[in-house]
Amino acid sequence: MTKRSADVRLSDDERFDWLRLIRSENVGPRTFFALIKNFGAAGAALAALPDLARRGGAARPIRVATPDEVEREFAAAAKVGVRFVAYCEPEYPPALRQIDSAPPVLALRGREEAMQQPCVAIVGSRNASAAGLTFADRLARGLGEAGYVVVSGLARGIDQRAHAAALGAGTIGVLAGGHARPYPPEAVALLPRIAEFGAIVSEMPVEWEPRGRDFPRRNRLVSGLSLGTVVVEAARGSGSLITAKFGLEQNREVFAVPGSPLDPRAEGANDLLREGANLCARIEDVLAVLEPIRARNPFSRFEEAWPEAEAPWDEPASFADDAEAATREADAPADRRRIEALLGPAPVSLDDLARAADASVREVRAALIELELAGRIEYAGGDRVALIAPREDIA
Amino acid sequence: MTKRSADVRLSDDERFDWLRLIRSENVGPRTFFALIKNFGAAGAALAALPDLARRGGAARPIRVATPDEVEREFAAAAKVGVRFVAYCEPEYPPALRQIDSAPPVLALRGREEAMQQPCVAIVGSRNASAAGLTFADRLARGLGEAGYVVVSGLARGIDQRAHAAALGAGTIGVLAGGHARPYPPEAVALLPRIAEFGAIVSEMPVEWEPRGRDFPRRNRLVSGLSLGTVVVEAARGSGSLITAKFGLEQNREVFAVPGSPLDPRAEGANDLLREGANLCARIEDVLAVLEPIRARNPFSRFEEAWPEAEAPWDEPASFADDAEAATREADAPADRRRIEALLGPAPVSLDDLARAADASVREVRAALIELELAGRIEYAGGDRVALIAPREDIA
Repeated sequence: MTKRSADVRLSDDERFDWLRLIRSENVGPRTFFALIKNFGAAGAALAALPDLARRGGAARPIRVATPDEVEREFAAAAKVGVRFVAYCEPEYPPALRQIDSAPPVLALRGREEAMQQPCVAIVGSRNASAAGLTFADRLARGLGEAGYVVVSGLARGIDQRAHAAALGAGTIGVLAGGHARPYPPEAVALLPRIAEFGAIVSEMPVEWEPRGRDFPRRNRLVSGLSLGTVVVEAARGSGSLITAKFGLEQNREVFAVPGSPLDPRAEGANDLLREGANLCARIEDVLAVLEPIRARNPFSRFEEAWPEAEAPWDEPASFADDAEAATREADAPADRRRIEALLGPAPVSLDDLARAADASVREVRAALIELELAGRIEYAGGDRVALIAPREDIA
Repeated sequence: MTKRSADVRLSDDERFDWLRLIRSENVGPRTFFALIKNFGAAGAALAALPDLARRGGAARPIRVATPDEVEREFAAAAKVGVRFVAYCEPEYPPALRQIDSAPPVLALRGREEAMQQPCVAIVGSRNASAAGLTFADRLARGLGEAGYVVVSGLARGIDQRAHAAALGAGTIGVLAGGHARPYPPEAVALLPRIAEFGAIVSEMPVEWEPRGRDFPRRNRLVSGLSLGTVVVEAARGSGSLITAKFGLEQNREVFAVPGSPLDPRAEGANDLLREGANLCARIEDVLAVLEPIRARNPFSRFEEAWPEAEAPWDEPASFADDAEAATREADAPADRRRIEALLGPAPVSLDDLARAADASVREVRAALIELELAGRIEYAGGDRVALIAPREDIA
């Protein structure tokens, strides 16, 4: 894989393979990009998946998405007016490209131009107060007039009010499930209007029915599309606070709208303020922080197509070295076994893991790809990794 | 004047002279202490006042408070149960002693012990919302239970509610006028109850009718008595914000209670939060910040009776050198004339003034005492001084 210096448009076949690879079992965005980097193309990575997963200690063969399944998803997408935009393509939202675990493929309905404008997320309570709704409305309208696209999660309350107020200027709704299963039901009426001047996006299969865990996962896209996230009303433990937390992890700005200490709907936002979030009591509070960032244009066209910060793998790493070698666990290099043994249920950073294993970060990454494909590890925020179940429990 | 290493109790005669000196024309706290330091006692300073003012360029003789006037104030004080506590005495509130321009004499009604406990100011809007009043009540009650004395300004709304809720634990009310002219009228019923377990204090003559400018001046005592000030509801430009500003200048903690951006009563508090004030949505927010400060006991018994930070004047300064000399302006030392010429309506710091005049801070201070007694300068916050009217306007 050579370094890319500009956007690349995928061929139809490549797009098909990209979708097939990301829809395969245990292939998260992080593993997807490592595979592409190592194998040069999605097709080659797909061919290697079964061996890699076996070497990572998978209890059973990995489920690779079949061409049939992917054909069906393309057909379902066409039926609801959805097309696929890949990470390396010019239509992909530039701010989203910068986050950890950016989706390799976005399913898009509406106008892709909306995703090229500077965005602000407005999120908040489903059971919002009248004051909260009024404020969200004013804020969304004002930010739209100032040239921002308002991003939100299509939920009842603050989210839907923000989308509706921003319709004229363009707004982006992020689904937790697939486009063919829009949720929540009240949002359905809003979707054609959003698609007309803005966009609706999803990283999930088009026919995916959203479950509870998909909502926090979706929230990282809401913050990741945006220069900043404004939390309008949020009770403690609410999803809006998860969006804010993702925003901070993604080095984006977080704003919170203050509220009376006697109103439980304001507790989460007040907590954010206590922890140092920007106070938002008027549109100018947001503009004062975001306009200089917008002017700096931090998410301009990317130079390097892949999200890894370090130098690209010029040489094949250990797991590729012996891609044709025996697949029994005993054949795993000593390095890899040392790395596995060091993992536990508490997340550790790749750097710490490399230090503890006395191995290079590249070697660690190679071992982790196999372990992830085997479904044995999961990533926490900020490049930290944990064992899903200790080896003893599996054996 | 020798350095003092502990509290000093004044004799009746000394107390009489202290009150007479601070009640004399153009003698503010700053000049009061400079005079005491230079002349060793209030009596000697009183004798020198007329000459000093003349040399500072006073257009007419300075009005020194007469013994009769001071007798009358003592009598009026006795009638309303008020006694006088001097800055150097052990009953003087230790936190207040640390502020710029601490009152040399406090007129006190109630229990002086209240002034020795750690204090928190709770201030806010006269036209408070029901939520604001409820929050002030809870906060005052909780802080009282935690061992704090609640300080406020006796105003309608938040102030009175805070005093009333803190009655059991002790509370301090600070008057803008004299004890014989309590203001506002609604506070009058509260005063005997405050005096029973707490205290009411004033720096103004006992018979003084408060005017507009006395309220901001009073607010520096509210913040100055306290480790921190909590602003509960405050519109833009309100007196509570002045109290908060004084608190910051005095290096005290400032807290603000958040409120909806749609409520104008919350604007001032939200502004404070935007500027970095501590967020207060529950009692723990205040305790988390103040308990470590309280434990450090930063306002323990003072070692040096006078508020000057630098070394005490061991030798007499220029204006004392020639105290018996001629009183015509032409006789002023070249240094002093240079200092005067450098002053204008824009406040400058003593250090900058000394640098510009190529004089010592001591020489500058000596010149300023004469100018202040002549009514020609005024102090801004933080040791900065400005000319009230340029010399040409007077001549």
